[in-house]
Amino acid sequence: MPAQNIYDEPDFFDAYGRMRRSIEGLAGAAEWPDLRAMLPPLAGARVLDLGCGYGWFAAYAADAGAATVLAMDVSERMLDKARSINARPAIRYERTDLEAVSVPQGAFDLAFSSLALHYVEDLPRLLHKVADALAPAGVLVASIEHPIYTAPRRPGWASTADGGQAWMLDGYFDEGPRRTSWLGAEVLKHHRTLTGLLASLAEAGLDLERLHEYRPTAEDVAQHPEWEMELDRPMFLLFRARKPLSPV
Amino acid sequence: MPAQNIYDEPDFFDAYGRMRRSIEGLAGAAEWPDLRAMLPPLAGARVLDLGCGYGWFAAYAADAGAATVLAMDVSERMLDKARSINARPAIRYERTDLEAVSVPQGAFDLAFSSLALHYVEDLPRLLHKVADALAPAGVLVASIEHPIYTAPRRPGWASTADGGQAWMLDGYFDEGPRRTSWLGAEVLKHHRTLTGLLASLAEAGLDLERLHEYRPTAEDVAQHPEWEMELDRPMFLLFRARKPLSPV
Repeated sequence: MPAQNIYDEPDFFDAYGRMRRSIEGLAGAAEWPDLRAMLPPLAGARVLDLGCGYGWFAAYAADAGAATVLAMDVSERMLDKARSINARPAIRYERTDLEAVSVPQGAFDLAFSSLALHYVEDLPRLLHKVADALAPAGVLVASIEHPIYTAPRRPGWASTADGGQAWMLDGYFDEGPRRTSWLGAEVLKHHRTLTGLLASLAEAGLDLERLHEYRPTAEDVAQHPEWEMELDRPMFLLFRARKPLSPV
Repeated sequence: MPAQNIYDEPDFFDAYGRMRRSIEGLAGAAEWPDLRAMLPPLAGARVLDLGCGYGWFAAYAADAGAATVLAMDVSERMLDKARSINARPAIRYERTDLEAVSVPQGAFDLAFSSLALHYVEDLPRLLHKVADALAPAGVLVASIEHPIYTAPRRPGWASTADGGQAWMLDGYFDEGPRRTSWLGAEVLKHHRTLTGLLASLAEAGLDLERLHEYRPTAEDVAQHPEWEMELDRPMFLLFRARKPLSPV
C-alpha cells in the first residue's frame, strides 16, 4: 500500500515546521555530526536522497560539490518548501512514494536517508532498489529510529524506584506496524528488529560497514537538559552499508 | 582487577548446576541452534573456548573433529566438572582469568565464547588478545547478554496498561559495572552498548560478519510458556567477527 503521507496534513506540517531541525536544518539535528562522519566524499558524487523533507541535506550535498542530487519525498508540501528554501542547480526534487521508488540503475555513489526508513512498510524491497540504484562501491548512509524506540506497543516511560525513569520496552520481536502519537497526530511507523534490519541489508547485497547509536554529548545535555533522558535508551540508529565492487 | 569468580562459591555453583543448560548441555541452551549456525567447519580446527564452563562446547567441538581445543575458565569447580563429564583427548582445560588471558599468537582458527564476555571488565584488551590468537581468516563466534538486557540499573519488568509487561530500560549509555541478583547471589557484569561492542571489535582489527538477536521460536514458547516474555525484549546477542587475511 502507498506510504502514509501525514506530512501533507496542514496541522501536522505546521507542527513539524516548528521543530528545531526544520527551522535550523542540519545544525538543529542532534545526530547530524555522527551521520556526517559516515558520509563518503561528496565532491563529484551522484546523490540520491530518500525522504528529503525540507531539502537541508540535498543543499548540503550540493554545496559540498555533489554532481547531482535526486531528492525524493512523498509530501508535496515538503517538496514545495524544499524548492523554496533549498533550491540549487544540482538538485532535482521529485515526488515519490518510498514504497514504490523507481530510480535508474547503477547511477548513484551515495544513497542517503534521514529518519525516513522506519515509515517504509516493505523495507526489503526498497533496499533491493537502493542496491540496484548504487554504482559498485557506492554506499547507503542512513539514520532510522532505533528498534528499541520503535518496538513498544504504547511508547512511554515508567518511574523507577530511584526516582528516575525507564523506557517501557515490549513487543521487540513483534515486527510490524506501530501507530503512535507525534506532534498531535497519529503516525504509522514500521518496527523491525536490529537483526531484521541487518538481514534485509544483507539480502539486498549491501555490506554493513558501520553501525552507530546516537547518544547526546555532555554539551548536548548542558544545552538541552530535557535530552538527558536520551541517555537511558537509544533513540536513533545510524548505519553505512556498501554495494560490493563485484556482484554478490 | 581480576575477574569476579562467583562460580567457585558453593551455593552459586550448586544453583548453576540445576539450570537446564548445565544438566542438558548445549541442547538445554535455547540460543545454541542460532550460535551453531555461525560456526565455521570444526573438522581439523584449532579451537579456543573462553569461559568454557562445564565443557559442553569443548566436547562438541572435539567430537566434531577439532584438532585441538584449549578450554579456559576462571572457576576451578567448573574445570573439575568439565574434566569429569566432558574429557576428550583433544581438549586441554586450563584455569585462566579472562582479564589476563595469555595465549599463543596466530594459533587458532576459532575463538568461541558463550555468555562469558559480559563478565569481562576490559573487553577491548581481551578482544585484542583474541585477534592476536587467531590465525588469519580465523573467526570469533560469541554470545553475550544483549546490551538492552545488561543496561538497567535495577533490571525488572513493569506492568503495562494492556495487562502485559515491559522491560524497564534505563542507563543504556552509562557503560560500566552492573551488580545484579542471579541464582541468589550478587553477580557483577559489565554493560556496554552495541555501539561500544562494535567499536571494540573494529579496534581489535576484527571484521563483524554477523550479528543476531536470539528470539524464542514458536516451538520454544509452546514448550516453555514462561519464555514468552523473551519476545518483549532481546536477551542474547550473538555475533561472528573475522580476522582479515592481511593485517589491517
